[in-house]
Amino acid sequence: MARPDDRAPDQLRPVRIQRGWLDHAEGSVLIEFGGTRVLCAASVTDSVPRWRRDSGLGWITAEYAMLPRATNTRNDREAVKGRIGGRTHEISRLIGRSLRACVDLKALGENTVQLDCDVLQADGGTRTAAITGAYVALADAVSWMRDRKLVKRDPLTTSIAAVSVGVVEGEPRLDLAYLEDSVAETDMNVVCTGDGRFVEVQGTAEGAPFDRAELDALLDLAAAGCAELTRLQKEALAR
Amino acid sequence: MARPDDRAPDQLRPVRIQRGWLDHAEGSVLIEFGGTRVLCAASVTDSVPRWRRDSGLGWITAEYAMLPRATNTRNDREAVKGRIGGRTHEISRLIGRSLRACVDLKALGENTVQLDCDVLQADGGTRTAAITGAYVALADAVSWMRDRKLVKRDPLTTSIAAVSVGVVEGEPRLDLAYLEDSVAETDMNVVCTGDGRFVEVQGTAEGAPFDRAELDALLDLAAAGCAELTRLQKEALAR
Amino acid sequence: MARPDDRAPDQLRPVRIQRGWLDHAEGSVLIEFGGTRVLCAASVTDSVPRWRRDSGLGWITAEYAMLPRATNTRNDREAVKGRIGGRTHEISRLIGRSLRACVDLKALGENTVQLDCDVLQADGGTRTAAITGAYVALADAVSWMRDRKLVKRDPLTTSIAAVSVGVVEGEPRLDLAYLEDSVAETDMNVVCTGDGRFVEVQGTAEGAPFDRAELDALLDLAAAGCAELTRLQKEALAR
Amino acid sequence: MARPDDRAPDQLRPVRIQRGWLDHAEGSVLIEFGGTRVLCAASVTDSVPRWRRDSGLGWITAEYAMLPRATNTRNDREAVKGRIGGRTHEISRLIGRSLRACVDLKALGENTVQLDCDVLQADGGTRTAAITGAYVALADAVSWMRDRKLVKRDPLTTSIAAVSVGVVEGEPRLDLAYLEDSVAETDMNVVCTGDGRFVEVQGTAEGAPFDRAELDALLDLAAAGCAELTRLQKEALAR
Amino acid sequence: MARPDDRAPDQLRPVRIQRGWLDHAEGSVLIEFGGTRVLCAASVTDSVPRWRRDSGLGWITAEYAMLPRATNTRNDREAVKGRIGGRTHEISRLIGRSLRACVDLKALGENTVQLDCDVLQADGGTRTAAITGAYVALADAVSWMRDRKLVKRDPLTTSIAAVSVGVVEGEPRLDLAYLEDSVAETDMNVVCTGDGRFVEVQGTAEGAPFDRAELDALLDLAAAGCAELTRLQKEALAR
Amino acid sequence: MARPDDRAPDQLRPVRIQRGWLDHAEGSVLIEFGGTRVLCAASVTDSVPRWRRDSGLGWITAEYAMLPRATNTRNDREAVKGRIGGRTHEISRLIGRSLRACVDLKALGENTVQLDCDVLQADGGTRTAAITGAYVALADAVSWMRDRKLVKRDPLTTSIAAVSVGVVEGEPRLDLAYLEDSVAETDMNVVCTGDGRFVEVQGTAEGAPFDRAELDALLDLAAAGCAELTRLQKEALAR
Repeated sequence: MARPDDRAPDQLRPVRIQRGWLDHAEGSVLIEFGGTRVLCAASVTDSVPRWRRDSGLGWITAEYAMLPRATNTRNDREAVKGRIGGRTHEISRLIGRSLRACVDLKALGENTVQLDCDVLQADGGTRTAAITGAYVALADAVSWMRDRKLVKRDPLTTSIAAVSVGVVEGEPRLDLAYLEDSVAETDMNVVCTGDGRFVEVQGTAEGAPFDRAELDALLDLAAAGCAELTRLQKEALAR
Repeated sequence: MARPDDRAPDQLRPVRIQRGWLDHAEGSVLIEFGGTRVLCAASVTDSVPRWRRDSGLGWITAEYAMLPRATNTRNDREAVKGRIGGRTHEISRLIGRSLRACVDLKALGENTVQLDCDVLQADGGTRTAAITGAYVALADAVSWMRDRKLVKRDPLTTSIAAVSVGVVEGEPRLDLAYLEDSVAETDMNVVCTGDGRFVEVQGTAEGAPFDRAELDALLDLAAAGCAELTRLQKEALAR
Repeated sequence: MARPDDRAPDQLRPVRIQRGWLDHAEGSVLIEFGGTRVLCAASVTDSVPRWRRDSGLGWITAEYAMLPRATNTRNDREAVKGRIGGRTHEISRLIGRSLRACVDLKALGENTVQLDCDVLQADGGTRTAAITGAYVALADAVSWMRDRKLVKRDPLTTSIAAVSVGVVEGEPRLDLAYLEDSVAETDMNVVCTGDGRFVEVQGTAEGAPFDRAELDALLDLAAAGCAELTRLQKEALAR
Repeated sequence: MARPDDRAPDQLRPVRIQRGWLDHAEGSVLIEFGGTRVLCAASVTDSVPRWRRDSGLGWITAEYAMLPRATNTRNDREAVKGRIGGRTHEISRLIGRSLRACVDLKALGENTVQLDCDVLQADGGTRTAAITGAYVALADAVSWMRDRKLVKRDPLTTSIAAVSVGVVEGEPRLDLAYLEDSVAETDMNVVCTGDGRFVEVQGTAEGAPFDRAELDALLDLAAAGCAELTRLQKEALAR
Repeated sequence: MARPDDRAPDQLRPVRIQRGWLDHAEGSVLIEFGGTRVLCAASVTDSVPRWRRDSGLGWITAEYAMLPRATNTRNDREAVKGRIGGRTHEISRLIGRSLRACVDLKALGENTVQLDCDVLQADGGTRTAAITGAYVALADAVSWMRDRKLVKRDPLTTSIAAVSVGVVEGEPRLDLAYLEDSVAETDMNVVCTGDGRFVEVQGTAEGAPFDRAELDALLDLAAAGCAELTRLQKEALAR
Repeated sequence: MARPDDRAPDQLRPVRIQRGWLDHAEGSVLIEFGGTRVLCAASVTDSVPRWRRDSGLGWITAEYAMLPRATNTRNDREAVKGRIGGRTHEISRLIGRSLRACVDLKALGENTVQLDCDVLQADGGTRTAAITGAYVALADAVSWMRDRKLVKRDPLTTSIAAVSVGVVEGEPRLDLAYLEDSVAETDMNVVCTGDGRFVEVQGTAEGAPFDRAELDALLDLAAAGCAELTRLQKEALAR
């Protein structure tokens, strides 16, 4: 089975990063990984949650959500159901943890950056697009803070990018679209720093369990994909 | 006080209607009234809610929501709070009622069209932009149904557009932006059919109560604004 | 079709206003519009919500609810369902806004009056009966405050009354009972001050959209109905 | 300490039972025990809950609630809080169990009677007034069913009445008002059948634990009080 | 019908009280009444709920819950359902009230003891086992506080034990197991102090109403059962 | 820093697996990893969730929870808060996915096994102890089904075990206790099949990001730990 869009196994989908998509947010990005489209907004507040007060440390937190018709068939709104689903919870926590890995919370001071990642359209890889876009929005929000002297030194210690990899019909592939993702035997999301170290590695056997060789191949593919995304983030931030 | 963007009192903000903004939805529109940007998606299902089964009638329903950073300062997500707020409920009900006014539910047959209006950015008039955009998304969803012979005859009996009007410093004005809306003495949302009749008239004295003359002036202004929006909807649907 | 109780089109149902129906509340009224029976209680507290503190301004807020067997068939309790419905939210907000229109919040000082409107029996026009009764309960609560020197000057700047109007079989009618309301083509709720200005105008085309002439006829009818209710409120408060 | 209203220790407060207080309900009663005022509505439906279907047995259930300003200081609505409190749950369950004790559920057939007991004003003994009133509403609903031949034979096997008793300053007293209830050392609610047997006995040491002699004295007092309430119920039903 | 385990009518099931079952809690007990197994944990905090602050008084509160597979068929989790059921609420309140009856809240000072009673396995009498075990956990938590000089004098004024009694086939029986409980005509839970006075008496006619003689027989049986449990508590605390 | 209990870096804590801890459940295990104690119950029902009906396939699902005083300081109950937290959701999903990896859902037929993992005491590694214990409970439930001929052939294709690993002060360590876990730079949970393949790999940089060499060392350690746990599971199932 060839890839639906004839990509090479180690090729990303077209990535598009539009900065400043919103007028009000301190940082905002509309990021696209092929048909996946996520709006990432970074909101700065000059305080921290109650449990963190008087620590001298800042806080980064994230919320992920999907519009009801982002997907092929409509999903009910979680606000209407009155509860956040497990998947939403899990991804929100992942994004928050991932982005905290590039921030010196002491340098941030007692400020909070809230990252909102809303999936406008979903075609696989929504969480990795969200992390990759959220980093750019965060970088813009940090610039906004530096311009206003709200932080004394740069709280960003590195950059963060994420990509999904998976095994489809025995072949390790980079950046799965929905159609591939739904038939993958193994599915892995990898979050890396700009200098190529790992922040999160989450691999799941959807079909058959995987062995160490498969795991190694997927990690190689993901590390290369994250390096390419890091390059695209830099390019976008340089514009 | 001149209008912030130097508009004439009876002038709409620039309106932009992009059809087909989503790949999956049967109809979708990104509508802009100046800085207000609403994504309207129409989802078709071939059944009706339980209380309507075996009636031979279709159903149109709507949900309105706002992304957390659509506004100047971030709002908490209703999904996280675990309950829909009163304002959200009220606007969702208004959109649903307004759009049902242009549909022959018998001609629609036992199908449902769900309209999702998500405010990506808010600068006043979000509910009226949502109604105006939702009509275009609904028209595209109806075309989709007709192409597939899911309805025998056209269920659309007219078109629907909506606009806000208000009195600012004694002057009746059309299509208030947020800054004007927040200081308006009287605020009115008007929903009209394509042939100029009224579907909803909702006027509220935010400051001083208003008299019949003011009410008449606002209704005149709104009727003209809706006529202009009707023209823009037709233009968009003709593209 | 004659009116079910043989009223003239511009005639109110029998109105009964019993003050002091509760022993504990600072103001309380059992109001009846024909078979519609609403218990309105005004509760005074000497503080304001957190977001309003240190503003020097008071606050008026309202909650509307219906007993489960107020209606012909029993409705489930919202407390049992664990969420307030959209209709309840909408009416509570309408009552609060309407009553705030007659209060000088500066003169009220940092006090809150909470208005609870509980429908014991419903036969159409519950929201308008609630507003009309809530004004009388509020007036009694304000007297209670003045007797205790909790306010320095009278915070009431006018009175508030409300009535529903609608078009039934082409005829504009005042104060619709449930049977008429359920077949009305157009339905409007109008809230007026004691001197005849408008506070809220909420018109909805339940069947066919309405034109300007119909709207004008309904507004005339409603203004006259509110004037009559204002007279009855004065009479009740003079007893 | 004499009783606040100079009653004898074994004397009930004035009891008033108004039948048919609501137009729609199959049975309805406004019952007063002194200043305590409870509206009891019985709603008949010709089906049973899912877990009871095809059993040939009927069902009796109850819900208790209190209006926010029934009490001296306002209580927040449970619908607004989004959850039923423990006390409400407990009393609703008590009322349901108590009333089921007088019904032959086989004779009732697969019908449900839902009893809604809403406290309009509270001055102690709201649960016992609710049970006593609910029985009368139930009896009227059963008559309504018999008139329509919905039941073949009388499902009522006895009547049900309830009263509170307590020890105040060492003296056992019948039917405590709020002021007495709040200082009682021991508080007991007793539910009896028309022929003087016990359905529920719920005694709680609010202050010091009680001994067998005190318990016996309270049971005597309660049995006599229930007998008097049984007489008043009969009188009301004979009107 | 003989008792399922051939016990005499006035005989308890084997009782086992294991103290210190948890490493972290200030007091903890795994108590067994036959097949019923409840884990009781007492948690001490050096503050009181907001409504009690600056009163000089302490607070004792309790929560009861059941693991989903404590019972013969699995019950859904209340956390998953998003609401506490009426039975859970009722039993939690009963446990809290019962334990407060043995504590001098002034001697406790502004400290709170939270009692968590989690039913690991249910075979009838879970609430009475919970109360009996919670007392032992509370006693250990109080010793812990005394060792740390957190209280000046002993806040325990007596001990608390509880047992269920019921009438099965006309015979009054002590400490019903689930099989007996489910066929009992009358069911009573009795909470006593160590010196034999009553704290709670909750009797319910599950089948036919009961008369005074039956009530007396059940009270005798329960008082003797509580005395025996008091002896076993002392024994456990002496180990 | 030596390990708190003087273990070698590649040594598990003492593991204890007690089968049949509950009388009612089809399979049940109390598993201990040192001070961590999890009660795992497997409940069999002869149906599947609605979305799975008529597929011929069975279902395995899991719920994880923690008693309030499992931890050093008490946590509020999720049932009382009215919502499941993100961590609980995430772990419940992980357990379900992990256990499904050892089951041939076709061989299971349209039966469901619900796995409840309740943490009675927590000292690090609760999710890995839960998975390891849940497998044994599942194996017992499957035996129960085979004894009753509810499945035609063995639905278990392998076994499942899980362990945590982490880097503490630069040293990779197996099976972290709470004290080590809270200072670990990197934390990884690994789920393996009985034949040493991977089902889940979830690594998180709590402190500094980790490189490929560290990741490899942790995977080696985890694979060996899972192999040892597999041996202990076999031993327990052979008893």
